Formats: sequence, C-alpha cells, structure tokens
Amino acid sequence: MTIAPESFTAHVDPARIQRDWEALAAFTAPELPYTRKAFSIPYKEAREWLAERMRDAGLQVRVDAASNLIGRLPGERDDGPVLMAGSHIDTVEAGGRFDGIVGVLGALEAARALQEAGVVLLHPLEIVDFTCEEPTLTGMTPLGSRIMAGALTSNDLIGVLTPLDESLADAINALGGDSAHVEQARLAAGDIAAYLELHIEQGPVLERANVPIGVVTAIAARCSCFITLDGQADHAGATLIPDRRDALAGAAEVVLALEQIASDSELIEETVGTVGWMRLFPNMVNIIPGHVEFRAEVRSTDARMLETAKSRLQAVVEETATRRGLQFTLQWEDMEQPVTIPDRLQSILVQACQTLGLPFMQLPSRATHDAARLASIAPVGMLFIPCKEGKSHVPEEWAELDHIVQGVHTLSYALVLLDQSL
Amino acid sequence: MTIAPESFTAHVDPARIQRDWEALAAFTAPELPYTRKAFSIPYKEAREWLAERMRDAGLQVRVDAASNLIGRLPGERDDGPVLMAGSHIDTVEAGGRFDGIVGVLGALEAARALQEAGVVLLHPLEIVDFTCEEPTLTGMTPLGSRIMAGALTSNDLIGVLTPLDESLADAINALGGDSAHVEQARLAAGDIAAYLELHIEQGPVLERANVPIGVVTAIAARCSCFITLDGQADHAGATLIPDRRDALAGAAEVVLALEQIASDSELIEETVGTVGWMRLFPNMVNIIPGHVEFRAEVRSTDARMLETAKSRLQAVVEETATRRGLQFTLQWEDMEQPVTIPDRLQSILVQACQTLGLPFMQLPSRATHDAARLASIAPVGMLFIPCKEGKSHVPEEWAELDHIVQGVHTLSYALVLLDQSL
Repeated sequence: MTIAPESFTAHVDPARIQRDWEALAAFTAPELPYTRKAFSIPYKEAREWLAERMRDAGLQVRVDAASNLIGRLPGERDDGPVLMAGSHIDTVEAGGRFDGIVGVLGALEAARALQEAGVVLLHPLEIVDFTCEEPTLTGMTPLGSRIMAGALTSNDLIGVLTPLDESLADAINALGGDSAHVEQARLAAGDIAAYLELHIEQGPVLERANVPIGVVTAIAARCSCFITLDGQADHAGATLIPDRRDALAGAAEVVLALEQIASDSELIEETVGTVGWMRLFPNMVNIIPGHVEFRAEVRSTDARMLETAKSRLQAVVEETATRRGLQFTLQWEDMEQPVTIPDRLQSILVQACQTLGLPFMQLPSRATHDAARLASIAPVGMLFIPCKEGKSHVPEEWAELDHIVQGVHTLSYALVLLDQSL
Repeated sequence: MTIAPESFTAHVDPARIQRDWEALAAFTAPELPYTRKAFSIPYKEAREWLAERMRDAGLQVRVDAASNLIGRLPGERDDGPVLMAGSHIDTVEAGGRFDGIVGVLGALEAARALQEAGVVLLHPLEIVDFTCEEPTLTGMTPLGSRIMAGALTSNDLIGVLTPLDESLADAINALGGDSAHVEQARLAAGDIAAYLELHIEQGPVLERANVPIGVVTAIAARCSCFITLDGQADHAGATLIPDRRDALAGAAEVVLALEQIASDSELIEETVGTVGWMRLFPNMVNIIPGHVEFRAEVRSTDARMLETAKSRLQAVVEETATRRGLQFTLQWEDMEQPVTIPDRLQSILVQACQTLGLPFMQLPSRATHDAARLASIAPVGMLFIPCKEGKSHVPEEWAELDHIVQGVHTLSYALVLLDQSL
C-alpha cells in the first residue's frame, strides 16, 4: 500500500508542537533556566507530564528497567521488531530547550499525526525518552540508551551517585525503573527494526547553508579523559620562576596543545578537542597551583583520526609533565567509536526529503546522541534541523518552529517508508 | 650604657618558644590544618590565648581600633616614639605554622628575655599581632598594618565581607576593634621609632646557603589584577576549532605568557608572575568555556621592573583577547610599590649578627609583609630565618627551633641597639 505523505503531514500541528514545547520548557530549575538535570525534581515532573501526553496520544506507556519512558503504538505485526524514534529531555546546567527535546516531542507528534491520518503501521512504533543522555554521570552517559544496548549492567550502577548526590540506583527506581535488574531493559539485535532520531544540529552548517534538513552520515565518537598534574604549592612571591613546579602552567600547555592537535590540517575537518572542566588547588591568588585536575575530550567522526588525536594528547601530557617536573595521571573515562549511518537508512531519509520537496544536505553529527549507543544493536538514522548560530547547551539555543515542523514531516514519512521496506 | 648581648640572650628560652608555638598551632580548623583565617573562630581563640601570654609577660595589652593586638612594655621615656616588633598569626587555608607566627612569638620572647635580664629600654616596646595579613580580603590586606599606616579608612570597610562572609566591620568589632573609627589606629611619621619583623624566608636562599640569618634589603611589591575573558560557551562536539571562542584557551595563553615575562633575562632575578586562582564557566566537560575569570599577580623588588612586567601582562591580555575574538576586562586590585630597607636599619641588624657571631646574608624579601605597609610611616627592618625547602603557605612549612632562637637573639639585640642609637 502506498501512503501519500500529504495524507498525514497535514495532521502535523505546529500549534500543538509549540504548546508541548512551551509546557516542557517550563519544567526547569527556576533560578537557572534551562536546567532539567536527569533525576532532578523538574525532570521527574516533566516525565510525568510527558507520560500523560503519550497517553493522550493513544500510546501504551511503560517505563523499562533502565527507567526509559516508552510510548508504544501497536502495529499490525505487533509481536515483531519495533520501529523506534526518540531522544532525551534532560538538559545540562543552564542548557537549552531543543537539544533532545525536539526528538522526543517530534516523534510524539509523528505518532499523533499518523494515527489521525488513519495510517496503521505494520511495525509497532515506540517513542522513547531515554534517561540521562547528557554527560552528568562520568563514564556512564548516555545512560538509558547504553543500558538498552547492553553496555551497562546492574553491577555498573552500584555506588554511583547522580549529579544531585543521590544513589543512581535509587534515582532509577524513583523514575519507575528497576535498578537491580536493568538487564531487563536490554534489547538484542533484531528487536529494533530501525531507530530514528530528530535533533538540532548543534552546529552552524545547516544555518549557514540555509538548508532545513540534514541527513546524518556519521556520528562522531567522544573520548574523554581525566588528567591530574601535581607540582608544588609554593608561595607565589618567594619562589623564583626556575624553582617552580606550577601545575597550572603545565595544564595551560596541555589546553593549547590540544587546540593545536585538533587544528592539524590532517584532523581539523573531522576532529575537535576541548578542555571544558578544570579545578585548581589550592586556588588561591598568592600560591602557585600545586595540583590541577581537568578533563580533556577529543571527538572525531573518523576512527583513525580519533586514535591519532588521543595518542598525541597523551604524549603531550607526558612530555609536558616530564619537562616541568610534574607528576601526572591520565585516565580515559569515556571511550566511544564513531558510528557510520547505514547507507540504507540514509537513503530512506534522503528519499523522504526528496518526496516532501525539502532541501537537505548530508553531514556528520559532531555531537554524540542516543542513536550512537543503539547503533550496536539496530540500524539507526538521524535527521538534523538548523539551530541558531550553531549554539547549543546554552539558554540561547534556538530552533525555528518551521524547521521543527519540517523535521517532523521528514521523520513521519521516513517511518512510513521504513515500515514498508523492512 | 652598654648592654652585653649575653646578658639577655641567655634568657631566650627555646623550650618556652616551643611550647608557645605548639599551643598556637593547635588553634586551627581541625579538618584542614593549618587553617586560622582572620576573623574565624580559631583565630579569635588564638587571639585570646596570645593576649594572655602577653599579660603573663608583663605587657600592657590593648586592641587598637583596627583590631590589631598590641602588648606594650613601658620604656623610660614612655610618652615618646615606640619601638615596635611583630607580624601576624592569621594563615591561609591549609597553610603553615611559621609564616607570621615566628615574628609575633619571637617578639614576645624578646620582650620576656629583656625583662628577665633586667634590661629597661628607653623607648616603649610594642609587640603587635597585625590583623589579617594574609590576602583573604581582595585589595584590602594586609589589613591591620594598612590601617595603622593610614592607607585605609572606616569608609573603605563598608560593604566588605570577610572570607567567612561576615561583615568586615562586625568582624573587626568582634575582635575588640572599632570599625566606625579605625582612623584612631592610625599612626603618624615619628610615632614609631623603628619597626622590626622576624619572619621565615618563604624561599630557598638561606637554606641553600646554609646561613641562619637573612638581613632583608628590600621588600618586593605585589600588584595583582582580576582578569575576565568572555568567549562563547558552545557545544564541545559540534563546534569546529576555527569557529570557537574558547575563553580557557585565551587564559592558558596568558598563564604561559606571564611565566615567560617573568623569565625574561632582564626581570628574572627580581620579578615573579603567577596565576594562582581561576574559575571557568560553565566548567562542564562537554562545553567550551565561555567565560573564565582569573587573578594574575606580578611582584618585584625593583619598581622599574615591576612596571615593565605589569605593562607586558596587560599587553598580552589585550593581544590574546583581540586575536581570539574574546572580550576582556583587566582590573588592578592591589598596587604596591617596592620598599627599600633603610641602610641604617640594615646596619643595625648586620651589627647584631656580627656581635652575636651569627652568619648572615643580605637578601630581598620576595613576599610582602606588614613591614612593607608600615614603611610609609616608620623606618622598618626585617630579619629572615631559613625555612625547609623554601616552602610556605602549605602544611609542610617548617623552620628549625635553633633558627627561631637565633632569630630571637638577633631581634632582641637589634632592639637594644636601636633603643640606644635612636
């Protein structure tokens, strides 16, 4: 059966998306918008609101053992593999109102529009809000999609604290999960026919090109490490420069060297490197920093470049520490591999754009997403929409409603195409 | 009348100094030794203990309007200028047990030994524990000596908070000061015949030379500034290096440039530069630092070199910010001038060492001290003793009791020589 896209895209309702988006944005720590950290009170409240919206949309709502919130639209072949679409609604501190959120609300709207158009899919469609995608748990996030992909077990949760210093196990249970048996949330290869994620680009490419839809070709891997440098916390007045072992000066060299590594002409197109977090000890104006801790990350869409950047970073830390008489530690905390989006999924998304008459371009995702975690157990595809000036993880993060609507159109139609072709 | 130094140095009691030192070291925040920040509870308790020791030593104890604790030994000419000796007993966080303390306890011991030997000075001798010498109040410390020298008024205290977030005015009053009239603590030129301060070197020179006494030639000036760099807090994955405005990378350049400035062959002998304090915003592993604040200081014993270092630092901040597309502010908070110790005071201290048969060397003080603040209203002199590996402002700070005793001998005799010559 051929389904004309106009038959259901007409039911995608911009006003309804806008209302959902406004309602969800209101769940925030009031003094620090937009802050809805995983497991916080605003997060729990937003989860309850979202479950209600799923029920309103006629979805069967459940929370899996990992505390992922799932709304299911039954298919004609209801016991087989599912089509899945979603993202996350948690934010970083003082983050945005679109990152992740567009993917969850967009998938919800797609499910509503399909039903309102009378489209019955062969596959069940599951709309998922993955728990704790943002990197607020060192080495464990994205949490929910990682558990679903079988990369984390109940044992891994033991002793871990949430950003709010609650036990992670308790926090998962409070959301309706089952922390002692998170393996029950694990899906195997074949359980998911395909997973699609709509997301803001979090970069400037689409906006600069004035193109509303991006079809993602690959998802960059993120590898981050925790580095400590130990020198000597001497008096800042009495210790002449040659007698110093200044941990901050060593860290400053590493910060600049990482910038240089990622700027190398062989790497720059596909690789970035960042020091975003740093602590000084004792952090007093008149004492030479004796101890500095920082996290450095490198990301690349290319596995070979990623390895090059990682090994160069490691070499710089060793060389700098040795030359400056500092002791160092370097511990890799997150170690991902780049994901290539299967050609078949890219083709479906391209076909959807072409049929809908939407300009599109193919581009890599430089940020990581739940889709990357599911790639080990399912074919995944990703759609990007532009965001203003490429800004993300900041309160000014912005996407135009028109672009969100176009994204939902593409997502809906791609789901239909996938349903028919798989 | 000639007084033989043996007549009173025999009364300098190492065991008594040791007991005093141990008792004072016990006044600390228990979880973070050795921490006795100005105005804290351990500080107040230590002040009470010290006032008792002054009374035990036969001194007339008072607290001036600036809350400096003063113990006075009357002189034969009791209405004239005073000889003054002292330092401070406050510490930085997790600091040491000698910085400042040796100067206060050493002066107290000198007063005891002189009395026990029956020496009556012509001048009154005042032993002073200056309030809040350590740089825990931005732009105001050393507080007590600055007020005494007339460099701060009651108005300057308004709205200032202590490191414990108490009103500074209230904190001064709680120590027995009179914050509304701190000008009453001001002394004029001529009120102090001479001020002597015994201190650990806080550097490695004396220990390396194996010399027990240092006669200070000059006190370095400290100029510190508050710098902010503003870039853009973008997503660390999605923003390619050429599109970034990374405030931490800019700050890292300034850290290294300041090290380079102070390493310049024209400056290195007399000048240091340090970034000891820094804060990143939002300080999250996956966000490019959009805002970084830090304090940089330069110190020099030479006024011209100090100006050179300051102007080069300022130029580097401007150049780095401009090149990186960052906005910046740079505000000088502390602006001191180097102090040259008068030849007459140096000669008296040298004479004391020679008469006592103590090896000595003349060297600059690279840290600043209460003496530097009093230099505008009085002839000041300083004596150093070695400290282990030059370490200071850390719990491992250490000075040998033998050196402290030799320092007290020198201080006592220098006071006698000054008393007779002034």
